[in-house]
Amino acid sequence: MRFLKGHGTENDFVILPDADGELDLSASLVARICDRRAGIGADGVLRVVRSEHVAEVAEQAAEAEWFMDYRNADGSVAEMCGNGVRVFARYLVEAGLAKPDEFAVATRGGLKRLRVEPDGDITVDMGRPRVLGESVASVGGHEYPGLRVDMGNPHLACAIGDPVVQLDLTRQPAFDPGVYPQGVNIELFNAVGPRRALMRVFERGSGETRSCGTGAVATAVAAAHLTGETTGTWTVEVPGGTLTVVLDADTSYLSGPAVLVASGDLLLAE
Amino acid sequence: MRFLKGHGTENDFVILPDADGELDLSASLVARICDRRAGIGADGVLRVVRSEHVAEVAEQAAEAEWFMDYRNADGSVAEMCGNGVRVFARYLVEAGLAKPDEFAVATRGGLKRLRVEPDGDITVDMGRPRVLGESVASVGGHEYPGLRVDMGNPHLACAIGDPVVQLDLTRQPAFDPGVYPQGVNIELFNAVGPRRALMRVFERGSGETRSCGTGAVATAVAAAHLTGETTGTWTVEVPGGTLTVVLDADTSYLSGPAVLVASGDLLLAE
Repeated sequence: MRFLKGHGTENDFVILPDADGELDLSASLVARICDRRAGIGADGVLRVVRSEHVAEVAEQAAEAEWFMDYRNADGSVAEMCGNGVRVFARYLVEAGLAKPDEFAVATRGGLKRLRVEPDGDITVDMGRPRVLGESVASVGGHEYPGLRVDMGNPHLACAIGDPVVQLDLTRQPAFDPGVYPQGVNIELFNAVGPRRALMRVFERGSGETRSCGTGAVATAVAAAHLTGETTGTWTVEVPGGTLTVVLDADTSYLSGPAVLVASGDLLLAE
Repeated sequence: MRFLKGHGTENDFVILPDADGELDLSASLVARICDRRAGIGADGVLRVVRSEHVAEVAEQAAEAEWFMDYRNADGSVAEMCGNGVRVFARYLVEAGLAKPDEFAVATRGGLKRLRVEPDGDITVDMGRPRVLGESVASVGGHEYPGLRVDMGNPHLACAIGDPVVQLDLTRQPAFDPGVYPQGVNIELFNAVGPRRALMRVFERGSGETRSCGTGAVATAVAAAHLTGETTGTWTVEVPGGTLTVVLDADTSYLSGPAVLVASGDLLLAE
């Protein structure tokens, strides 16, 4: 089985080219591939398959030749991943399967439009963030008010006065379970300059991660909220690198590096 | 750059074939390869080079065609690794570079003799353990007496009454710095049956790991000490799998699985 490995601001993925949809990709095989010691190791798997072969995205096939079949590291099926789709796009362009100007990718979260920037960064249209009000996260006994932002998944983005580098995020920050009965992704950030934020993120089900695409957009929305802005360009520094978020009236864009680090053959058997 | 990835009881390694010693393998490139998110991810790198090309092991070249150039994940040079040399041997046999009956590998820790068992496990002669006396490790306020075993590197192997699965090894167990001024690898084990132990290990400089070859031998020596034995075969269960340790009058042998999980090309640039 052919594979590639890549990452976007250190969210990392194993890419499995499967143009004709012939791979029988079980949850257990995904989990074995993503195992960081007994497998290749990754946050998830991106299977690359022509949309026409996948019934659930057949209506996207006219606009998007390729479907990103995203699986979490535990093998479960997921809808979308902002950094994952940027790495997926890098693979398509490097493999000559998409032109670097604007193109679309089919996902379970709907059609995603991407483009390669002149500096090589890859941008994805993340859709329109929905601001739902305010709530509070709590870390080590400190309460931090923040903004509730829905990006398709739930976020709570909190501007804090304490330096984010000093937070202990080994444990899940506390949140209001009445507001978030299904859990929430929590961003804690320092607004450190004009339209610039330093962010750390605790993802539900994963713990602290090196980056989170939807979380970076939620942070930009919350940082904009602080200054009364709704549009513009924000730089969001995450532990794994630097992301750029553009907010406009109708949607949001996430830009950043996406790199391939290896290609080869899996020797793991099912 | 060609690579393979493999593991032995979930100690994992990136293997770099370099028969003629042409690779210029900097510490920074090793660290980038071993980075679990921005690289391939591994506990270390095993460069595979003909001994005749490496001055520091020239005296081993007559007996061992291949030298294991072992590097830690941070890029530093290391002498030996019990699970690493077993994975190295698997590569040599799979690549047709060694016959599966007994053969030798050159290492900075001296010549290591290996063989492939009929069941596929790979055995390495680990040399004679040296018992140096007793000392005490402390975990969460509980003191556990144990045996000091020198395997070329320092170990303290403690038989404990509490179930090892319940220990909190997120922090370094305390030990006597007068006995171990350079630090120590600490094994905590339950003797659970005739010549069988469940072991967890905290490696100095790494924290808790899924397996440790020298630690498994030290644990077998300490388990044997409990019953007044000095020779025989012990089964040591570690979080990453099962190892077998044979103690005889003159030396010790470590056996267990060693598997290759992927092969391919690195796309990382220096």
